[in-house]
Amino acid sequence: MALKARALYDFNSENPGEISVKENEIVTLYSEQDIEGWLEGSNSKGERGLFPASYVEILKNDTASTFNNNSTSGSRYANIPTGVTSPGLTALSPPAPAQQQPIYQASQGSDEDWDDDWDDSSTVADEPGVVGVNYQRDFDGNGPSTYRLSTSMSKGSNVQQAKSSATVSRNLNRFSTFVKSGGEAFVLGEAAGFVKDGDKICVVTGQYGPEWQENPYPFACTIDDPTKQTKFKGMKSYIAYKLTPTHTQTQVNRRYKHFDWLYARLVEKFPVISVPHIPEKQATGRFEEDFISKRRKGLIWWMSHMTSHPVLSKCDVFQHFLTCNSTDEKSWKQGKRKAEKDEMVGANFFLTISTPSGPPLDLVEVESKIDGFKAFTKKMDDSVVQVNATTNEFARKQITGFKKEYQKVGQAFKVLGQAFELDQQAYSVGLNQAIAYTGEAYDAIGDYFAEQPRQDVDPLMDLLQLYQGHLANYPDIIHVQKGALTKVKESQKHVEEGKMDAPQADGVNERCNIISFATLAEIQHFHQVRVRDFKAQMQQYLTEQIGFFQKITGKLEEALQKYDNA
Amino acid sequence: MALKARALYDFNSENPGEISVKENEIVTLYSEQDIEGWLEGSNSKGERGLFPASYVEILKNDTASTFNNNSTSGSRYANIPTGVTSPGLTALSPPAPAQQQPIYQASQGSDEDWDDDWDDSSTVADEPGVVGVNYQRDFDGNGPSTYRLSTSMSKGSNVQQAKSSATVSRNLNRFSTFVKSGGEAFVLGEAAGFVKDGDKICVVTGQYGPEWQENPYPFACTIDDPTKQTKFKGMKSYIAYKLTPTHTQTQVNRRYKHFDWLYARLVEKFPVISVPHIPEKQATGRFEEDFISKRRKGLIWWMSHMTSHPVLSKCDVFQHFLTCNSTDEKSWKQGKRKAEKDEMVGANFFLTISTPSGPPLDLVEVESKIDGFKAFTKKMDDSVVQVNATTNEFARKQITGFKKEYQKVGQAFKVLGQAFELDQQAYSVGLNQAIAYTGEAYDAIGDYFAEQPRQDVDPLMDLLQLYQGHLANYPDIIHVQKGALTKVKESQKHVEEGKMDAPQADGVNERCNIISFATLAEIQHFHQVRVRDFKAQMQQYLTEQIGFFQKITGKLEEALQKYDNA
Repeated sequence: MALKARALYDFNSENPGEISVKENEIVTLYSEQDIEGWLEGSNSKGERGLFPASYVEILKNDTASTFNNNSTSGSRYANIPTGVTSPGLTALSPPAPAQQQPIYQASQGSDEDWDDDWDDSSTVADEPGVVGVNYQRDFDGNGPSTYRLSTSMSKGSNVQQAKSSATVSRNLNRFSTFVKSGGEAFVLGEAAGFVKDGDKICVVTGQYGPEWQENPYPFACTIDDPTKQTKFKGMKSYIAYKLTPTHTQTQVNRRYKHFDWLYARLVEKFPVISVPHIPEKQATGRFEEDFISKRRKGLIWWMSHMTSHPVLSKCDVFQHFLTCNSTDEKSWKQGKRKAEKDEMVGANFFLTISTPSGPPLDLVEVESKIDGFKAFTKKMDDSVVQVNATTNEFARKQITGFKKEYQKVGQAFKVLGQAFELDQQAYSVGLNQAIAYTGEAYDAIGDYFAEQPRQDVDPLMDLLQLYQGHLANYPDIIHVQKGALTKVKESQKHVEEGKMDAPQADGVNERCNIISFATLAEIQHFHQVRVRDFKAQMQQYLTEQIGFFQKITGKLEEALQKYDNA
Repeated sequence: MALKARALYDFNSENPGEISVKENEIVTLYSEQDIEGWLEGSNSKGERGLFPASYVEILKNDTASTFNNNSTSGSRYANIPTGVTSPGLTALSPPAPAQQQPIYQASQGSDEDWDDDWDDSSTVADEPGVVGVNYQRDFDGNGPSTYRLSTSMSKGSNVQQAKSSATVSRNLNRFSTFVKSGGEAFVLGEAAGFVKDGDKICVVTGQYGPEWQENPYPFACTIDDPTKQTKFKGMKSYIAYKLTPTHTQTQVNRRYKHFDWLYARLVEKFPVISVPHIPEKQATGRFEEDFISKRRKGLIWWMSHMTSHPVLSKCDVFQHFLTCNSTDEKSWKQGKRKAEKDEMVGANFFLTISTPSGPPLDLVEVESKIDGFKAFTKKMDDSVVQVNATTNEFARKQITGFKKEYQKVGQAFKVLGQAFELDQQAYSVGLNQAIAYTGEAYDAIGDYFAEQPRQDVDPLMDLLQLYQGHLANYPDIIHVQKGALTKVKESQKHVEEGKMDAPQADGVNERCNIISFATLAEIQHFHQVRVRDFKAQMQQYLTEQIGFFQKITGKLEEALQKYDNA
C-alpha cells in the first residue's frame, strides 16, 4: 500500500517544484523521509512535487503498532468526529501503553540521570528548520547578519517552521490528548486524590467571565548575567543564569537543564494551562555570546509569563525552582523528588479546581466561546507567522540592501568630494569638506540601518516566538474541553437511551463544568497577557523606530551644518 | 581596408559580450552602424565584442572627402601632436568648406524657415539612450516610477550616455576645434573687425587670477507657468514659457525653439565660454505635464547660469531674447537678423576681449593651470556620472523596494490587528485600533519613500545634467587654448629657424595671451558657479532628506500615541 499523508492545512505552492495541497486532502508520498523539511509526493490532482512536511500528517493505517484514530480528524483545529458512536462510555480511543507516557520523556530523569551529562546538547538534537527562530548567517557571509535570506527554499521553510512550532509538542496522537491529559479520566469520574488546602486553585467570576483568582502575592523574577561555570575540575562546562525573585530577594543559579526539567513538570501537571515554551535547545555554539544573550532574553520572556500566571506562579515546583538554594544539593533533590511524585497532575489537577458558587456555565455558550477562541488562535497564528516572516525579511533587507544603498550614496558623495578637492582654492575648501562629511554621514546611516533590527525587530520576534508557543498549546487545551463537552452530550444520549442513570450523567456534567471554568479562565488570562505584551512590545518597537529615524535626522543635520560656512 | 576606430578613452568591459579598450587603441569595426549606442568589433588583443560607440572615433583614412587629421589626436584631452612640422605658419589642417559651417546648422534658419514648423520635434530627432537623462518607465510598469532599472545594459548605457554627453557637440572633427572656433585664425592675426565700445569684454585680475569683469547690473529671470498656445487657428500647438527678467520687470513669452535658436547663436559667438546646454529635445510627449515641468526646471537652471555669467548675461542676442516684446513680430525679426549677421563671432570674438594692463601671463603657468583644470574636469565628470547613476538607482530602490518593504510591514501589522479584532473585549479594543493605525502608518511611510526622490534626487540630477553639459564643453575650450599655446611654441621655433620675424611672433604671443586670459577667466567663473551651485543643491538635498525623515518620525509618533490609552 502506498504511503499516504493528510494535509493539515492549505498549502499554496509559490515556487517551481512545489505543489499545492488543500486541508484534508490525501497525498501520496514517495518517501517518508523529508528533505530539509519538505516531502515529495503527488496531490489528488496528480501533480508531483514538494510540500512542507509539517503541513501534513503521515497516515500509517497499515501499521498495527500505531494509532489509527488520526485518520478521521486531521485538522489542527478539528472537532471530535461526530460520526463516532461509542457503545457506552468507553474511551473514544483505545488505550495504548504509549499514551500514558509523559510527553517530555527526556527530562524525566532519575536522580542519577540528573547528575549525568544531560545538558541541552545531549537531550534533544536540533532539527534544522523546524525548531524556533533558527537564525542563520547571511549566505553572502556579509557582516553580522543573522537574518535568513529569502530564497524560495528558506521562504518556504519560514512558513513551515512557524507552522511546525504550533504542532511540535503533542501532534503525534492529537486525538488522544483528551485521554492523555487526564481530561477523560476526570470527566468519567475516575480521578481520585486528596486535595490539600494549599493545592486549591480558584476560578472566580470576573468582569469578563471566569478567570483565575489573582495571586495575592504577585512577584517577578530577574534573570541576570549568565556565566560559564565548570565542575568536575573543569571537565564539564555549563552556563548558569542568576535568578532573583522579588519575593525572596535571594539569588539562585539555574542551568538550562533545570528550566527544561521544570517545564516538563508543568506540562505534565496542568492539562488546560498553556505553559510557556522555554527557548529552543541548540546543539552547537552553546557558549557563544550571541546565543547566550538570545537564550537569556527568551528565558526572561518565559519568566515573565510564568510569574504573571496566577496558577503557574504559585505552584510548588516553580517555587522550589525559584527559591531552593543552589548550593544545597540535598534540599534541591528533595524538592525535585517531591515534584516528580506529585499526585495532583493530569486528571487529578482538575480535582484541585474550585469553581465559583452559583449555577453551572451554559454549555451552548461555553461551546460558542471556545469556538470563537479557536477561530481567534487560528487567525492570530496566521498573522504571527506573517509578521514574523515580514519583519525577518525587513531586518534582512535593512542589513543588506538598505545599508548598501545608503552607503553607495555615501560613496558617490565621497567621490564627488574627492574630485572637487582637486580644486583647492580657498572658496571651495569648505564645500569639499562638507561634501566629504555628507559622504561619511550616509555611510553611517547605512550602518544605522544594519544595526537597527537588533533593537526593534529582534525583541518583536522574541515575543512572537513566545506566542507561537502558546498558540501551539491551545489546540490541545481546546481539545480537552471539547472532549469533555462531547462526553456530556454522550451521557445525555445514554440517559435518554436508558444506558446511564441521571446522577451519573450529572456527575459528568459537573466535572465538565469544572473543565469549562478552567479553560475559560485560561483563555481570559491569555487575552489579558496578550494585550499587555503586544501593547508594550508595539510601543517599544515604535519608540525604537522613532529613535532610529531621529538618529538619522541628527546625522543629516550635522552634515547640513557643515555647509553653513562652506 | 577594414573599418577602424580609435578609442578616445579607456573602456573597461563590465559585462559579458563587452570588450575593454585603451585610450588611443585602434579597434577593427564590423560595422559602422551602432546598436543602441554600442559598436561591435575587435580590439588589439583580438577580443571580439561590444564597446560604447561614443568611446571611439571612426577613422576614415580611405575616404577622400573627410578630414584625416583625426588620426593622430584621438584623446579627448589630447594636445596638438608635436610631431607635425608645418612649413611656415600654414594652418595645421587643410581648410575645407565644411569647417566653415556653423556647428548648429539646424537652428540657422532664414526668416522664412523661422515661421515654418520647426518646433523641437522637427529639428533634431531624439536618440534614445544618448541624450541627457533619458528617464524611462519602470520596466515593471509599477506606479509613477521614472527611474531606470539597473540592468547590465542600462548600467552600460548609463555610463555611455554620460560620457557621450561630453562628446556629443563637436566631436566630429575634434582636432579642428581650434580652427573651427576661429582660435587659429585669431592667433595667426587673420581676424579683423570693428569693435564697438559696447562690445568690449573685460578680463580683470581678481583675487584668484584672471576673471571676467562682473556685470555691473546683475539681474535674474524667472520662468513661470508654461502654457499651451495655438496658432493657425488651432492647427499648431506649442508651449510658451513666461520669462520675466528682473531688470525690465516685463514678461515675454518664449518657446523652446527660441531657446534653441539663442543657444546656437551663443555657441557660435563665444569660442572659449561654456554655454550651458538647454534641456534636451524630445520627440514625443511634448505636451505632457511631467515633461513640461521637467523642461521648465531645466530652463530655470539654464537661465540661472546664463544670467550669472558676466559675459553671456550682457550679450546683445541674449538681451534681445529677454526683452523683445513677444507680440512685436517686426522688432523680433530685426533683432534676430542682427544676431545672425553679428560679425563679432568666433575669431572676431577674441578681438573684443580686453586684458588687464601689466605683463602677459606666464605661459608655463598657464599651461599648468589648464592641465590642472583638464584633470579636474575629467575627475569631476567621472564622479558626476557616479553620483548620477547612484542616486538614480537610489531613487528607483525607494520607489520600488523600500516602499514595498515598509508597506509589507504595514500589511503584516494590519493583519495582526485584524486577527486581534476577533477579540472585541473592552480592554483590547484600544490595542486593536492602535495596531491598525500602526499598519496604516507603515503604509504611509512606504508612500513617503516613493514620493521622496521627486523632492531631492530629481533636483540633484537636474543640476548634474547641467554640469555634464558644461563638462562636455570644456574639452573644446581647452583645445582652443592648447592650440594657441602650440602656435606660440611653433612661432618661437620658426623665429629660431629664421622662418619668421620677431614682431610677427610677438603678435602670436600677444593674441595667445588674450585667449589665455579669456580661458582662465572662464575656468575661474566655472569654479565659482560650481561651488555656489553644489553648495546650494547639497543643502537643499539634505534639508529635503531631513524633512523626509522627520515626516516619518512624526507618523510613527502619531502611531505610538495611539497606544497611550490602549
